[in-house]
Amino acid sequence: MKFHVEVRIKLKKGMLNPEASTIQRALALLGYSVEDTDTIDIITFTVDEDSLEAVEKEVEDMCQRLLCNPVIHDYEVSISEMEG
Amino acid sequence: MKFHVEVRIKLKKGMLNPEASTIQRALALLGYSVEDTDTIDIITFTVDEDSLEAVEKEVEDMCQRLLCNPVIHDYEVSISEMEG
Repeated sequence: MKFHVEVRIKLKKGMLNPEASTIQRALALLGYSVEDTDTIDIITFTVDEDSLEAVEKEVEDMCQRLLCNPVIHDYEVSISEMEG
Repeated sequence: MKFHVEVRIKLKKGMLNPEASTIQRALALLGYSVEDTDTIDIITFTVDEDSLEAVEKEVEDMCQRLLCNPVIHDYEVSISEMEG
């Protein structure tokens, strides 16, 4: 079965996010006043596995080993079975 | 009223995405076989405006002027009113 996987990665609360600060400052320079700017990275892919449980385990491994840095990132995984 | 804004930015179909290719290759090197890897950037912020329509117009302007490059990016905006 094919599964569609979406991993949503953001910096843990309290970590400095220079990208978000830069965006907020640039918006302010253009005259837009916004607050609490934050950025989130999403990685999506499809994976072919026998069961949802197998995908969950595999994606958790990928996050720990490569996709995220557990010291500074929080992440959420969502998995959905694909049609066909 | 305060509104929470989320702008979801991705490369248009057909654009090369070296970040996604690198992730997919790195996963393959670790033994994970995945396909159709893609990346999406999300920018979130809060904005204080009188009406939803005003926010929609303002965020559309921000996207065109700063947040996105309309030549290479597709983007989706979602806006929700915040409690309190």
